[in-house]
Amino acid sequence: MIQPVELARELIKRPSITPADAGCQAVIAEHLEALGFTIEWQPYGEVTNLWARRGNESPLFCFLGHTDVVPAGSESAWGYPPFQPTIEDGLLYGRGAADMKGGVAAFISALENFIDKTPDHSGSIAVLLTSDEEGDAVDGTKRVIAALEERGEKIDYCLVGEPSSQNQLADEIKVGRRGSLTGKLRIKGEQGHVAYPQYARNPLHMAVSAIKELIETHWDEGNQYFPPTSFQVSNIRAGTGADNVIPGELEISFNFRYSPMLAWDEIIASVERLLKRHELDFSIDWRHSGEPFQTSEGELLKAVEAATEQFTGKMPLRSTSGGTSDGRFVAPTGAQVIELGLLNETIHKTNENIAIADLDKLSNIYEETLTRLFG
Amino acid sequence: MIQPVELARELIKRPSITPADAGCQAVIAEHLEALGFTIEWQPYGEVTNLWARRGNESPLFCFLGHTDVVPAGSESAWGYPPFQPTIEDGLLYGRGAADMKGGVAAFISALENFIDKTPDHSGSIAVLLTSDEEGDAVDGTKRVIAALEERGEKIDYCLVGEPSSQNQLADEIKVGRRGSLTGKLRIKGEQGHVAYPQYARNPLHMAVSAIKELIETHWDEGNQYFPPTSFQVSNIRAGTGADNVIPGELEISFNFRYSPMLAWDEIIASVERLLKRHELDFSIDWRHSGEPFQTSEGELLKAVEAATEQFTGKMPLRSTSGGTSDGRFVAPTGAQVIELGLLNETIHKTNENIAIADLDKLSNIYEETLTRLFG
Repeated sequence: MIQPVELARELIKRPSITPADAGCQAVIAEHLEALGFTIEWQPYGEVTNLWARRGNESPLFCFLGHTDVVPAGSESAWGYPPFQPTIEDGLLYGRGAADMKGGVAAFISALENFIDKTPDHSGSIAVLLTSDEEGDAVDGTKRVIAALEERGEKIDYCLVGEPSSQNQLADEIKVGRRGSLTGKLRIKGEQGHVAYPQYARNPLHMAVSAIKELIETHWDEGNQYFPPTSFQVSNIRAGTGADNVIPGELEISFNFRYSPMLAWDEIIASVERLLKRHELDFSIDWRHSGEPFQTSEGELLKAVEAATEQFTGKMPLRSTSGGTSDGRFVAPTGAQVIELGLLNETIHKTNENIAIADLDKLSNIYEETLTRLFG
Repeated sequence: MIQPVELARELIKRPSITPADAGCQAVIAEHLEALGFTIEWQPYGEVTNLWARRGNESPLFCFLGHTDVVPAGSESAWGYPPFQPTIEDGLLYGRGAADMKGGVAAFISALENFIDKTPDHSGSIAVLLTSDEEGDAVDGTKRVIAALEERGEKIDYCLVGEPSSQNQLADEIKVGRRGSLTGKLRIKGEQGHVAYPQYARNPLHMAVSAIKELIETHWDEGNQYFPPTSFQVSNIRAGTGADNVIPGELEISFNFRYSPMLAWDEIIASVERLLKRHELDFSIDWRHSGEPFQTSEGELLKAVEAATEQFTGKMPLRSTSGGTSDGRFVAPTGAQVIELGLLNETIHKTNENIAIADLDKLSNIYEETLTRLFG
């Protein structure tokens, strides 16, 4: 029976900078095969994907994770070598410790314990790992899910091991994610000399009222689980660089993180209506990169909350804040999706680390979740 | 007695792309020397400057011009080689024909005629030519004027030969110029992830109301000669290029063209007050590149208007619109400053050209102006 910290160290040693897997999934596959999982590799492009399943019955529980990590940045800024796992004062340091090799290790350890005690569990258990969660996320989970759907294989419960905890282990679980919609707006004016504004049309001058209205609009109130929809301008650009030229075009890109209270096509229609009302000459490219989803009830949520309370003494907060995860690719299949993992305080930073005690506790919570579902 | 078109051709042949003079001023100096002018070269850095004077009495009339031209751009876009003056259908083609080698040629021809008829004119006549009007304008007229002031030599009447005409020769003269004030504004926010706007401060979101107010402010009403002060944003920039990052800083550069109803330090104070009222964390670099000036009365204006009416049959429109000229360096000395020159329709464009008839008429107007002042 492997300790989670030992497996986490094995994984951190492998410099699997996205989209590389660097052999991590092979280490995991060995453990899973020994536990009676059927191993299926689904490589796409540069991306390594593992689909492993034990059992043929419904419902199907799937642990979703990734073995790729974000780059270490300047290694000299680290107090500990990012790809040489180091233990000090009860902490394990290394790139990916929290996001999310630690979570993967905790789950594998949980599986070993669970299957040891309950070799004839009900339902089926799967592990889906990809090596491009941190990258483009095109050839990873998305394609594996498409392949499963193609052959009619359906996940019922999806537990995503992403670092969801804020201050204490398992103080928060994600029960949904906001949708993400990006717009690239071009507003046309007419270039000219600043000395002759009457012969030019400054696109910023024409658009400033519309931009102000977009920024100040209350798109919705959110709901019990979701913060209100947010609009943020990420880039704005106009001008030739010269001080005496009125720009001929203005480019603005912006992003909506929207709650399930709104549909993406409603947002698009509202924005375009607003721009037309301001009589702007514009074009806009939209990119919709994730529907919102919400898992505010169901067997998986019940099992995760009860298991968490058992080991932490507290019910976790149900949250929907923060960025996207690969859970967005699973939710549209109808699966219940919950994210529960380690503390996210040091992710994507130098000296990324986790407490070894948290790793053990997370493994216990994962095991207890399986027990409550299939024990 | 040289024909203006012959001298203009001599000058256009010399590819005096700013700040090069390419021998133009030496051609002029030869003519002036023959007319009894004292020639004084004032080279500064890469710039050629000529100060030529005839007579020692007051008042001092000065013709102000430049021999440099803007680049031709892609020569293949021209129907005529830019530095091989070509005459076709009564038009003279070439870079600088209108801006302003034609004007210089017209004045030299006018001088020859005037001095031939009135060798013992009253007052003094000077010609000031530079080769960096189209460039930085640092080592040109500005420095010559400083040197004159240093030694107590004062211009009373300054006639600038820049192309002031709109549709017909001498339909407009410039009796002043707006001031120019440029600001580079930086607004500080706090960078962050678009998914967590609560941990970031988007500088565009913070500043949009202030920008709208700057754009919509009526700074003044102008006066009889000046259009209202205008504010134009020339450049705006924020964002890392990534769609999921809230920018940490916003940069905006803008330019005021302001009438003599406002002082530049009042404008600066107003803008900074407005930004503070919006509680922005900002810094701003100001560049003041020209005081406004106005010559709405005086002997020079009277002489120019009467001379123009005599040869065109119409009083010219007194205008203050448009960009800056080197007149801005002369006006602060207390001189009366008027701009009168060829049509500006083709300046800085391909196939720059002028009508030869206009060149002759302009020379007549210049000569008549001298006659009315000093004849």
